[in-house]
Amino acid sequence: MFIEIFDTTLRDGTQGEGVNLSVQDKLLIAKRLDEFGIDIIEGGWPGSNPKDEEFFKQAKNLNLSHAKLTSFGSTARSIQNVEGDYNLNSLLQSETPIITIFGKTWQLHSQKGLGLTDEENAELIYKSVKFLKSHGRRVIFDAEHFFDGYKHNPQFAMNMLQAASDAGADTLVLCDTNGGSLPDEVYNIVLEVKKRFNLQIGIHAHNDAELAVANSLAAVKAGATHVHGTINGVGERCGNANLCSIIPNLLLKMNLETNQKNTLQHLTSLSNFVYEIMNIHPNTRSAYTGKSAFAHKGGVHVSAVMKDSRMYEHIQPELVGNKQRVLISDLSGQSNIKYKAKEVGIDISDDKELSKRLVNYIKSLEYDGYQFDGAEASFELLFRTETNEFSPFFRLIDAKVNVFYDADGHTSSEAVLKIEVNNEIEHTAADGNGPVNALDTALRKALLRFYPEISKIKLVDYKVRVLDEKEGTGAKVRVMIESSDGESTWGTVGVSTNIIEASFKALSDSINYCLFKNYKNQQVFKS
Amino acid sequence: MFIEIFDTTLRDGTQGEGVNLSVQDKLLIAKRLDEFGIDIIEGGWPGSNPKDEEFFKQAKNLNLSHAKLTSFGSTARSIQNVEGDYNLNSLLQSETPIITIFGKTWQLHSQKGLGLTDEENAELIYKSVKFLKSHGRRVIFDAEHFFDGYKHNPQFAMNMLQAASDAGADTLVLCDTNGGSLPDEVYNIVLEVKKRFNLQIGIHAHNDAELAVANSLAAVKAGATHVHGTINGVGERCGNANLCSIIPNLLLKMNLETNQKNTLQHLTSLSNFVYEIMNIHPNTRSAYTGKSAFAHKGGVHVSAVMKDSRMYEHIQPELVGNKQRVLISDLSGQSNIKYKAKEVGIDISDDKELSKRLVNYIKSLEYDGYQFDGAEASFELLFRTETNEFSPFFRLIDAKVNVFYDADGHTSSEAVLKIEVNNEIEHTAADGNGPVNALDTALRKALLRFYPEISKIKLVDYKVRVLDEKEGTGAKVRVMIESSDGESTWGTVGVSTNIIEASFKALSDSINYCLFKNYKNQQVFKS
Repeated sequence: MFIEIFDTTLRDGTQGEGVNLSVQDKLLIAKRLDEFGIDIIEGGWPGSNPKDEEFFKQAKNLNLSHAKLTSFGSTARSIQNVEGDYNLNSLLQSETPIITIFGKTWQLHSQKGLGLTDEENAELIYKSVKFLKSHGRRVIFDAEHFFDGYKHNPQFAMNMLQAASDAGADTLVLCDTNGGSLPDEVYNIVLEVKKRFNLQIGIHAHNDAELAVANSLAAVKAGATHVHGTINGVGERCGNANLCSIIPNLLLKMNLETNQKNTLQHLTSLSNFVYEIMNIHPNTRSAYTGKSAFAHKGGVHVSAVMKDSRMYEHIQPELVGNKQRVLISDLSGQSNIKYKAKEVGIDISDDKELSKRLVNYIKSLEYDGYQFDGAEASFELLFRTETNEFSPFFRLIDAKVNVFYDADGHTSSEAVLKIEVNNEIEHTAADGNGPVNALDTALRKALLRFYPEISKIKLVDYKVRVLDEKEGTGAKVRVMIESSDGESTWGTVGVSTNIIEASFKALSDSINYCLFKNYKNQQVFKS
Repeated sequence: MFIEIFDTTLRDGTQGEGVNLSVQDKLLIAKRLDEFGIDIIEGGWPGSNPKDEEFFKQAKNLNLSHAKLTSFGSTARSIQNVEGDYNLNSLLQSETPIITIFGKTWQLHSQKGLGLTDEENAELIYKSVKFLKSHGRRVIFDAEHFFDGYKHNPQFAMNMLQAASDAGADTLVLCDTNGGSLPDEVYNIVLEVKKRFNLQIGIHAHNDAELAVANSLAAVKAGATHVHGTINGVGERCGNANLCSIIPNLLLKMNLETNQKNTLQHLTSLSNFVYEIMNIHPNTRSAYTGKSAFAHKGGVHVSAVMKDSRMYEHIQPELVGNKQRVLISDLSGQSNIKYKAKEVGIDISDDKELSKRLVNYIKSLEYDGYQFDGAEASFELLFRTETNEFSPFFRLIDAKVNVFYDADGHTSSEAVLKIEVNNEIEHTAADGNGPVNALDTALRKALLRFYPEISKIKLVDYKVRVLDEKEGTGAKVRVMIESSDGESTWGTVGVSTNIIEASFKALSDSINYCLFKNYKNQQVFKS
């Protein structure tokens, strides 16, 4: 059985709190969704805002290889003027091969929201679908609030579907708009709809009872073959059904066919990409794609997965492009440290003394607020320092940072830095866009003469987390930096109550790590 | 039908990445779980670490009003020495009225993990349970990997339950340890177990396929009356089943009885409390308890919920102690602004010009990176400035911040501040624990003479978010501050590429807001 996947990240997803996409962002995401093999991409509501109209204009040049675009809108405003309706005509002007429109299928909404009789609402749906069909497009009818509507008045809800079906709708999508339905309700109601209509049936679920994925699967089990959702489950309130869970569940657990079968190993990178474009913090605990999804902490679990990963992993992480991780914490033992060491290419299995010392050292750093997940480069330097393979390429003597700003908007940030490199003292200063930027600029300036290769290093991510937030402005902060030399990326960490010092630590590690890797490859070890 | 709720936040929850609880933290959470009406609290694994042993010692003084504590551990290490087993004896020494032990019910684990024959594994379970029962405790048997075990070899899995049952176990808990089962699998397997055993059956689900809540409900539908989970669904990998979703689903959707019926309106505050103690970022999109759970953004939805909240809310947010929110964004129209204004007590419905100006102003600030959710005090000041009700109580002339540190660990942070208050210039300086703390201290020092009431203001939260993380150290940062005067709390925001300036803006708003409220109450308006 083939299940068609309909992505609404660009439309319903943008209703989520904190989600705001530019036209360019939307185009980038659409391209990635197409590469991932999504069947239908809902791009926006052209009648409701100019940004979405602009998206559809520019999307014509996307050259999608598989996905079809759809625009989204409501039924006409008035039965009297369907053909001249601004919204419906905006949908046609978007020139998408598919048009998705929603209509009211809960009597409460039809009566109270729109003030229509049942017959008027049915006519509105019929005429709107008919008008769009007369222009030769595939029409998907979103039956808004269908499950609530059916529970309230099944006759009314079914009649509205009938109106859409009579007018030639190609797909009837049953929406759990408020997200409060239970899987067995969804299953039973979809069965009833399947009995009456010989059309493709779809499901559009929301996550307000933490059941959106289960409700989508229940609908599929009852015969739905078209599933709506968003990447990472972003969307209004608690979000939409999460395609990053639904797609692997359909493929790996239910043995159904979807068009993402051969691209499933790109699921995690798609998830991260969308988080990044949206600039929202990833949910590390997400099923399948989360950073923690295959992360093991307890010593018992760690030694078991090292024997056979099936013991504590429901699937192989590689199937969805994720990976197994082992965490270091006060719950962890030496097997975790050994695993981590192996990850960075060091075998410490013979040296019990070293591994014990490392466990204690790392635990004390974690107690101080350090975190090495995402800062593997800092972790490796720490390891290599303990094994005497690494010593720093430069040494800070002192640093001053001066910030000034006034009421007229004058502002300056200056860093003065004294460092020692190869027994030479380098004393330099730089301005910056804020104090941390000034320090970053000064450090690079000081080192460039000695290590010209650092000009390649770019910061690709800079994050600040306030630890112990209750301490107010005197709290410790943890700075995580991700750097790149154009070929590989690495993460480093610094912790201090002083954000400038914490940033300096992370910056220093980043540069040291890059130099260490370069010199190591040239077989010139520093000591 | 009554469903018993078993909370394992303090045991399985602490296996989650980034979760680390002190003994004191655990005691605080246990107290809150009891107040919320949880039936059983799993406090830890006394045999595995000294912290958990200490917890059980101190927990004896908690005077829980309803909840019963349970300790957790595994079956004995060896059939030959059950009575002398260290782990089992640690469980007895925890002196909890209930003991929970897990045993292997998947042949893969029994054979490959423990190297036991089927008969030996059954004997291990039987003897371990029997030993604990002989000491008069209620024994809960966690059938680890039961669903995977049943799918692999139903006979084996059932025989292990039989051993626990024969030894007198009071409750058989079926665990989906790897979290990969589907709701209909869970439903069918629980039905089979119910047919064979006339004992209380429980469910312990994990969220690796984003189905933990659905799986728990499916088990209840099949006859389970005992449900394991954690607050906010924290736990290893993708987490445990989320009690914050399960409990309201059982009570509000399935019309079952639980002991949290009369405390349900404290659910959101319990969720926030646990996030806070764990110092992890709340999932704003969580069902029922998330900050966004009843937040409306689209203009259509906002005007509908203002008519009748049922239209886009599956339950009344107050039932779980949450509340409706309306968001401001480029998708929002004047109805959102009006709602927000009403929230802070301003009626702008008559002044179309003002509301239009406000919408545009707020949109341009949001474009610059401002965010007013969580910074309602900054939002109100902005409003009151536009309506000429508020003007600042002080004016910055200029600020300098100087940071120094060196290789020997000497460090200093000094702020020099010139501000104008009531036409007087105040020029002062202060040291601090980091640059932002120095600035905070200097500002308070400068203002205290004029406004002694600000000594009451405490910062309860300080957060930094790097916007546009790709810009590296030159990126904009948004600082959010939460302040309290001991009676109420308020949030403010500041944005700049300079973290010191962004912090100053948020600090200034915080103090201005407090003074504004004080003077307003005294009917002495500044202008």
